[in-house]
Amino acid sequence: MLRWLLLSAAFICLICPSKAALERYEPNWASLDERPLPSWYDEAKIGIFIHWGVYSVPSFGSEWFWEDWLNLRYPNYLSFMKNNYKPSFAYQEFAHEFTAELFNATKWALLFRDSGAKYVVLTSKHHDGYTLWPSTSSFSWNSMDVGPKRDIIRELSTAIRKESSLKFGLYYSLFEWFNRLYINDKLHLFLQQNYVERKMRPEQMELINEYLPEILWSDGDWEAPAKYWKAEEFIAWLYNDSPVRDTIVTNDRWGFGTACHHGDFYNCQDRYNPGILQPHKWENAFTLDKSSWGQRFDVELNDFMTSEELIGEVVKTVSCNGNALINVGPTKYGTILPIFEERLRDMGKWLSVNGEAIYGSKPWIYQNDSVTPNVWYTQKLDPTNSSAIIYAIVLKYPYDTNEIDLYPIGNLSKDTKSNVILFGYEDEITTDMSVADMSVSLVGMESAQLDWSLNGNRLHIVLPPKNHIDKNGLKFAWTFKITKKGF
Amino acid sequence: MLRWLLLSAAFICLICPSKAALERYEPNWASLDERPLPSWYDEAKIGIFIHWGVYSVPSFGSEWFWEDWLNLRYPNYLSFMKNNYKPSFAYQEFAHEFTAELFNATKWALLFRDSGAKYVVLTSKHHDGYTLWPSTSSFSWNSMDVGPKRDIIRELSTAIRKESSLKFGLYYSLFEWFNRLYINDKLHLFLQQNYVERKMRPEQMELINEYLPEILWSDGDWEAPAKYWKAEEFIAWLYNDSPVRDTIVTNDRWGFGTACHHGDFYNCQDRYNPGILQPHKWENAFTLDKSSWGQRFDVELNDFMTSEELIGEVVKTVSCNGNALINVGPTKYGTILPIFEERLRDMGKWLSVNGEAIYGSKPWIYQNDSVTPNVWYTQKLDPTNSSAIIYAIVLKYPYDTNEIDLYPIGNLSKDTKSNVILFGYEDEITTDMSVADMSVSLVGMESAQLDWSLNGNRLHIVLPPKNHIDKNGLKFAWTFKITKKGF
Amino acid sequence: MLRWLLLSAAFICLICPSKAALERYEPNWASLDERPLPSWYDEAKIGIFIHWGVYSVPSFGSEWFWEDWLNLRYPNYLSFMKNNYKPSFAYQEFAHEFTAELFNATKWALLFRDSGAKYVVLTSKHHDGYTLWPSTSSFSWNSMDVGPKRDIIRELSTAIRKESSLKFGLYYSLFEWFNRLYINDKLHLFLQQNYVERKMRPEQMELINEYLPEILWSDGDWEAPAKYWKAEEFIAWLYNDSPVRDTIVTNDRWGFGTACHHGDFYNCQDRYNPGILQPHKWENAFTLDKSSWGQRFDVELNDFMTSEELIGEVVKTVSCNGNALINVGPTKYGTILPIFEERLRDMGKWLSVNGEAIYGSKPWIYQNDSVTPNVWYTQKLDPTNSSAIIYAIVLKYPYDTNEIDLYPIGNLSKDTKSNVILFGYEDEITTDMSVADMSVSLVGMESAQLDWSLNGNRLHIVLPPKNHIDKNGLKFAWTFKITKKGF
Amino acid sequence: MLRWLLLSAAFICLICPSKAALERYEPNWASLDERPLPSWYDEAKIGIFIHWGVYSVPSFGSEWFWEDWLNLRYPNYLSFMKNNYKPSFAYQEFAHEFTAELFNATKWALLFRDSGAKYVVLTSKHHDGYTLWPSTSSFSWNSMDVGPKRDIIRELSTAIRKESSLKFGLYYSLFEWFNRLYINDKLHLFLQQNYVERKMRPEQMELINEYLPEILWSDGDWEAPAKYWKAEEFIAWLYNDSPVRDTIVTNDRWGFGTACHHGDFYNCQDRYNPGILQPHKWENAFTLDKSSWGQRFDVELNDFMTSEELIGEVVKTVSCNGNALINVGPTKYGTILPIFEERLRDMGKWLSVNGEAIYGSKPWIYQNDSVTPNVWYTQKLDPTNSSAIIYAIVLKYPYDTNEIDLYPIGNLSKDTKSNVILFGYEDEITTDMSVADMSVSLVGMESAQLDWSLNGNRLHIVLPPKNHIDKNGLKFAWTFKITKKGF
Repeated sequence: MLRWLLLSAAFICLICPSKAALERYEPNWASLDERPLPSWYDEAKIGIFIHWGVYSVPSFGSEWFWEDWLNLRYPNYLSFMKNNYKPSFAYQEFAHEFTAELFNATKWALLFRDSGAKYVVLTSKHHDGYTLWPSTSSFSWNSMDVGPKRDIIRELSTAIRKESSLKFGLYYSLFEWFNRLYINDKLHLFLQQNYVERKMRPEQMELINEYLPEILWSDGDWEAPAKYWKAEEFIAWLYNDSPVRDTIVTNDRWGFGTACHHGDFYNCQDRYNPGILQPHKWENAFTLDKSSWGQRFDVELNDFMTSEELIGEVVKTVSCNGNALINVGPTKYGTILPIFEERLRDMGKWLSVNGEAIYGSKPWIYQNDSVTPNVWYTQKLDPTNSSAIIYAIVLKYPYDTNEIDLYPIGNLSKDTKSNVILFGYEDEITTDMSVADMSVSLVGMESAQLDWSLNGNRLHIVLPPKNHIDKNGLKFAWTFKITKKGF
Repeated sequence: MLRWLLLSAAFICLICPSKAALERYEPNWASLDERPLPSWYDEAKIGIFIHWGVYSVPSFGSEWFWEDWLNLRYPNYLSFMKNNYKPSFAYQEFAHEFTAELFNATKWALLFRDSGAKYVVLTSKHHDGYTLWPSTSSFSWNSMDVGPKRDIIRELSTAIRKESSLKFGLYYSLFEWFNRLYINDKLHLFLQQNYVERKMRPEQMELINEYLPEILWSDGDWEAPAKYWKAEEFIAWLYNDSPVRDTIVTNDRWGFGTACHHGDFYNCQDRYNPGILQPHKWENAFTLDKSSWGQRFDVELNDFMTSEELIGEVVKTVSCNGNALINVGPTKYGTILPIFEERLRDMGKWLSVNGEAIYGSKPWIYQNDSVTPNVWYTQKLDPTNSSAIIYAIVLKYPYDTNEIDLYPIGNLSKDTKSNVILFGYEDEITTDMSVADMSVSLVGMESAQLDWSLNGNRLHIVLPPKNHIDKNGLKFAWTFKITKKGF
Repeated sequence: MLRWLLLSAAFICLICPSKAALERYEPNWASLDERPLPSWYDEAKIGIFIHWGVYSVPSFGSEWFWEDWLNLRYPNYLSFMKNNYKPSFAYQEFAHEFTAELFNATKWALLFRDSGAKYVVLTSKHHDGYTLWPSTSSFSWNSMDVGPKRDIIRELSTAIRKESSLKFGLYYSLFEWFNRLYINDKLHLFLQQNYVERKMRPEQMELINEYLPEILWSDGDWEAPAKYWKAEEFIAWLYNDSPVRDTIVTNDRWGFGTACHHGDFYNCQDRYNPGILQPHKWENAFTLDKSSWGQRFDVELNDFMTSEELIGEVVKTVSCNGNALINVGPTKYGTILPIFEERLRDMGKWLSVNGEAIYGSKPWIYQNDSVTPNVWYTQKLDPTNSSAIIYAIVLKYPYDTNEIDLYPIGNLSKDTKSNVILFGYEDEITTDMSVADMSVSLVGMESAQLDWSLNGNRLHIVLPPKNHIDKNGLKFAWTFKITKKGF
Repeated sequence: MLRWLLLSAAFICLICPSKAALERYEPNWASLDERPLPSWYDEAKIGIFIHWGVYSVPSFGSEWFWEDWLNLRYPNYLSFMKNNYKPSFAYQEFAHEFTAELFNATKWALLFRDSGAKYVVLTSKHHDGYTLWPSTSSFSWNSMDVGPKRDIIRELSTAIRKESSLKFGLYYSLFEWFNRLYINDKLHLFLQQNYVERKMRPEQMELINEYLPEILWSDGDWEAPAKYWKAEEFIAWLYNDSPVRDTIVTNDRWGFGTACHHGDFYNCQDRYNPGILQPHKWENAFTLDKSSWGQRFDVELNDFMTSEELIGEVVKTVSCNGNALINVGPTKYGTILPIFEERLRDMGKWLSVNGEAIYGSKPWIYQNDSVTPNVWYTQKLDPTNSSAIIYAIVLKYPYDTNEIDLYPIGNLSKDTKSNVILFGYEDEITTDMSVADMSVSLVGMESAQLDWSLNGNRLHIVLPPKNHIDKNGLKFAWTFKITKKGF
């Protein structure tokens, strides 16, 4: 039997019947799930996630500060508050210290652009209910009324879009820990929907209509079913009638049971990274500060991913059909700590060389190499010179041997019946192509021809002298580009 | 023609057909206006009004601080804020200094009781939208979430009611200066009612159901018609189905055009005191600090009514069929400044002697004496000894003459046809009664018989030696009680 | 033996040998005690004491807040702080809320003038060490550096002096509860004087040289002997060489054992009012808020002296050779609560009528009447018409009798040997004078001649009709003026 | 003529006559300059400088915030304050936000130990006058009274000393920008010394006596001559009688004109790094954040030295007889930002391999190689096997050639007359030694023998395969160790 995978820009859309443009989606998952993913999202691969809000003021523990302190009553939170604040201190008072006086949206936008990310997702409202825009439904608990006295979403979205290549998305928490409307609905077993009708839905509509985001990143859904949140009818409106119906992408957090099952892309859980190919587009949302999404001042170097780890995480994710959504937590001042900046700029430098293996790439038939560890694959068609490309990204340099074996690379082939290009095992390929059509190079050092040979399926490469690599500043991960012409 | 006024406990109800208990009110003014006034309210005569809220923190200017500062931009407010606060200071920050750490509801209740008031009205929500209870619809902008962290209404209503003779009422501002829901409705010319449906109505219902107030004192209605506020349907619910349908009393501020026209009692304007008899029950809401309802620290002695002025205002109001609602503005600490306390205790002392001329009294056919100035009348039936009483309250002591003429007192009479008791002119009275049935005394010095005589209608009284009065602590106003037996 | 008392403007100076102007005082009590009291002080009679400082911010308990909280650890202070402040809250943080934004020195000066006071004493530094001027020796703990950012002493002294009749004095606490320099000296049993030399003495000098006060009101002396404070040498400088050597007056708190023994006037203890004549000039420093010198927001009406009590206290004090120093505690905002203002204005009104019995008066041979209670005497010579005046100030009006007996008034006489005027018993008087030279009137109603008669020593007066008194606004206390010509 | 440099542990002491232990220093520079440097300091080479104080709260601009804002009135400071604080905001208010709630002295001590530093210098008081200990002479303006409410010096010195290998020093600013005592002295042209006598000297004494520092790092001296500061007499006390007279080391900032001329070691200017050998021991005090000593939140990655730059700075400094004092600015929370930690840990890792070339080393006759750039030398005697060692530290790896020439290494020789070991030119050496006594290795990879040869004075080294280096984690700088036996 033929084991293969389709190689095409229409990788995903080809296997699912496309929705006709004029047809409308029904407010049920069966219909909604048929919508094709807008192509920009899969091509972008890398986004920046920003958790910023009132929790950035205590900057202690995590962005779940309020819950951990007052609902879960964790001892370390209780004693932090007891030791440092008056007994009657309200979480809301933190908002007045959320000054953002050093916030400069353009600086952020330039940093994100330099990091190589292609989209940005901002927490428009987290579980504490505080909104980063002047929500009509959140009087006195939004960034225009208290704290910065600014429309953070407006400032950031404008700056991000001026940098043409970046898309702008909004995170929105469906529930709110302490909103009495929600709590009352919950006490009524979600049989009433006061919170949904009077607070949540108006805010979702306002966000879409005012800021035209390309992503609506839903969260805080898990306590109630999608029916309570009226998720299907809302998504149908998003797809059919909203002003962003052509470009909007949404995730899978729309009520318990929806995660990993419905939505334009799947987040499944936080920091989800399955390590194997996923048939449905997914996103790995993870944090540079391994313990928190929001900024913490009780953080140490050890809590941060290294640049190597960050780039490794991106590579693995993209190999498996995921996007990487990399979280940074700005300070209450509106700055991004240099340690975050260092990680992002390291990634940006790496991508400035190796980006061709990431952006617009597709997963290959194999994700990681089963013989040589720490090697991950992506692929791409280059229609300009009729060639197919396999990228083998090596996360650990083979210092001892200076050689590497990639397995199996030998059988790049084409399905003549469908005229679709495939990779596969020798005995399954109808049209063989000679090694003469193939070339191998190290991305960033294309001028230096590598010694390579094919032994059966195994591609054996002798690496260039290491010092040359260092001289060129190649580090963190090394991309081998295997090109086969004639596709 | 007979000019007369009915004297009866049913003074007002007798002239309007009573609504049968089982009949329901329709949601229109014609029907609602037929409701009889619950008797407790007319009998109470004196209430305490409390303006307390976030504006008590700047305690500058008045409780309109926010509006005067940011919407009207009065120079003195702008410079107060510019000089004393950071530029980004939000009114909402004041809420965290609204600490109320010295607030003791029992102390307040005892003071109000000692003042002689019979009811208390608290600002549950003023135009700034901050609620003194944990409103389900005002997340993070209420006294439980920010500021005192206490349910002020719960504490005060409980304490007030433990003092058995006082009723408890709630002021509620329909509109909110800065609520975007309201502002948007207004921008839509009040053709949409998002604010009413999502914010105001739920709060009104919650207040009634949770705290069972005897008064709902509506305000902030004037920008929109009653139809926008859906006032008629709400009042119909209040009268028909609410848990307080038997006792609730409401005022006349339910949309522009309603003031002085609809409602259980009329406030008309702030500090309304027409000086002549009003056919419909009304209330004179006025402040001890003549310039502000909320506490101000930029206040001086000269800004306060004296105890004489206070008692005079009460007397005039009651004479004309009004209730007096006397406002105090507590401090952000939860205390009531001694100057307020002094005024209230002075009134209490006066009422402890003269209260019989106030509580449960009815207006007489004349309100003030047209010959002797500064004399105001009330009347009362004393069924236990079949007597009618006229109280003539003298606000300025006749130091020069030590005598007083009251005009016309002579014609106390009874309408034999209706068996209703009246006072009136000689030629209109069917059954005369002799002077022998009449007695005159000074309230508080009943033991000292006064010299008096009737000259036609004129009652001439010789006052007791003044030093005896002082010895008994009579001051501020002196009540002459004219009793006629045989009614 | 002749029992007598000299009546003269030189009442005190005549009995002590005057110090020649050019002679210098030695730095020892024997010498310092010889200095004559500058006459302005005795004539002034009434001063206003102002306790204002950082303790006005918590405005809880009293101006001893810091001590009571952290050294004495009184439970109510501990729980106040625990309930309302973060655990690490420093007393010093209160200073930043000591904003004084409504402080208007001219307003204060006018109020004090209207109260009838003739001098003002301000706490330049209380025991907390915070100075109301930019002390060179109190960096970051003075009103220019933190809090109002203003030189309070400069502003107030300037405003007070513009009102020509008022003198300006400064209270200064020698010790400071928490100053480590002082604490260390104390731990060394006051055998070292680092605090005195490096902190206290430089500040005392600076105060005198910069602000030229007429009073230096010393306090906080009691823990150490005057030798530790180097008091004698400092006072010698004050008297001999300071720029205020001609006008300065100081009190008796200069080290333990000095109170009631040394100083221009004696305060002895707080609220000292012995009720009998004192040979040495003294001052009764007392508070309108009976429990605190500093402003408290946890104050109630009951805590305040009434206007009657205030005037009574002034009268008794002056009768016994004392001055009255009446304390008010302004708010942290810089305002004086209306209840204080009311008391002061009541006193001012009383003094505007009765002031002649107070200002520039001398104690008489008797202070209070031993037969008729609540009568206190002062006296005065009127050189313009060669008459001697006795003022009998009646604190309780004789409502029952409308008559009063004063005993003994009959023997106004003159010591012919010294040509000094005296009052005394019959058998001790060399030259009798007839009743014909004597007149009696009620101050404020001089036009109404009173019926009076002398029965032996007893002066019997029939009071005017009471209502006339009220009409003239006479209240609180009534002054009878007994004039005898021919002195 | 013989050009040479003595190689000995007594490098510096040998050229200056040692002071006999019992002889006392006179309070003049001539005498004080004769004191030998305690050996621990020269051996330590690397210290951590900590700038922490109230300026860490605004964390804007630099630790000169107060001066730049209020004295120099730089527009960006003025607008920062104007935009974010109330007009009356006092710098002193920042102190209350200097909470240090996350300050853990042990964590800091461990981090500094791990960084490879051998001493720590803390700002006990900066120019703002705020002291990090409960100074007896700085009431209400120290870390015990306001802010952390902790004795920071006590906590940190205790923790540092528990880590046995680290010494503890204190920075102390002589002057204070806003202290009126100092300002007045200055206005008097420093002819009076009130500030010195009443504030500065007592604090210096207290610091030495209480905390026994090994370094007193003086600063803020430049406005006045050393005579004003009474520096000589103080240093004489330090050397003769203070409890730390045997170990204390002090710098050269003791009055204008003293920098680079007097003191145990010279700082000359901030960030002083002359690049050539200095005969007198010196210290290069520099900051990781290139623009500020105190923490700034308006900092970006670009403002920080990279780890390569840091290690290069250390190497150059040590080569030229300096110590490196590396500054970190902790946050107001008491944490050290991860970017600082990363730099320090990188240095620590480098020193854990290369430390032998740094600690206890001496400058060599040459500091940097005049032929091959970016090579810096240190030297050491190894008495255990009678060998002399030259360390050549290469800051830039020779990627292109994989070879390196060091010049001149050939002439390691010994002065037979003095039996002192020297390095020098061929013609100046009396006793030559053969190449057979010489070996060359790469520190951290001693097992891998290098190919090397001597061509005249030039030492030619062929580097090991680069990938082996990477595998061993060698980076930032590479140390070649040239050992010659028989010394």
